[in-house]
Amino acid sequence: MQNLQEKASEWSGVETNHAFAIDDTNLFQKLGLQTFINLSTNFYNRVYVDDEEWFRSIFAKSDKDKAIQNQYEFLVQRMGGPPLYSQRRGHPALIARHRPFPVTHEAAERWLLHMQQALDNISDIDHDSKIMLMNFFRHTAYFLVAGVEQKNQSLHPCKDADGRHPCKNF
Amino acid sequence: MQNLQEKASEWSGVETNHAFAIDDTNLFQKLGLQTFINLSTNFYNRVYVDDEEWFRSIFAKSDKDKAIQNQYEFLVQRMGGPPLYSQRRGHPALIARHRPFPVTHEAAERWLLHMQQALDNISDIDHDSKIMLMNFFRHTAYFLVAGVEQKNQSLHPCKDADGRHPCKNF
Repeated sequence: MQNLQEKASEWSGVETNHAFAIDDTNLFQKLGLQTFINLSTNFYNRVYVDDEEWFRSIFAKSDKDKAIQNQYEFLVQRMGGPPLYSQRRGHPALIARHRPFPVTHEAAERWLLHMQQALDNISDIDHDSKIMLMNFFRHTAYFLVAGVEQKNQSLHPCKDADGRHPCKNF
Repeated sequence: MQNLQEKASEWSGVETNHAFAIDDTNLFQKLGLQTFINLSTNFYNRVYVDDEEWFRSIFAKSDKDKAIQNQYEFLVQRMGGPPLYSQRRGHPALIARHRPFPVTHEAAERWLLHMQQALDNISDIDHDSKIMLMNFFRHTAYFLVAGVEQKNQSLHPCKDADGRHPCKNF
């Protein structure tokens, strides 16, 4: 798991310090709860009617209102607001919760396209905040591509073990 | 993934609102960076010489100093301090990063035993903060047991799909 961050930077083209520039300010205080609700609503309104059936179908079995709530609660929490997501659902566990979905490079780019359009359609997000959010989204999307891709690869120390490891429990 | 939080509460005996009482205050501001470094150092000093070989061996291939740093950086971030962990390693991705390890009920209890002893040995953590931290640790330990257990179960929508889902990408 050590190189997820590096892979995310390489694939997204966003350096780590740019991805986490969101932590230099408090975007929740700056933008407010309603802005994040609007952003997630606008985003999923696009996703659920995507012309690309392969992408739309990824979400087809998920409830749209729940998807919106999950996203804005996570964003509020991650951007310096109250931990709405964790209080309701526990740790974000981003990679594990995305495991059921085909998080490919192609899917990441389509997700980011819709998010860019959603950001551009929310008038009360200033230019600098949009750049910060998009860098975070871009880096995180590829962090997830890397993380979900790794799921079927050898992560277990037993794979190269000498027999003294308690692999039987795994 | 919807019932991880419920499973964590049931197995740990810690209700969600108690587990996340850590968010009602800022334990990082209250306790300071050095306290978290001391806590994680004390914890891993115990773990790496555990009498129980089956537990000690879980960590045998991990560098102790790195384990300490990973833990205190995560705790600092989660307890209201600067996002040291994410800046260095990306999203905590707690479940995914624990997947290589046998996170059983038994291992969770042994982890918690060492953490309780570590907390009891750090003199500059007040009683209330210890309770809050231990509730968080207890709930999170079983959240991980539930999450890692679920890894081999069917999470994929294709499992009950009708053939229209793009499972080929997964």
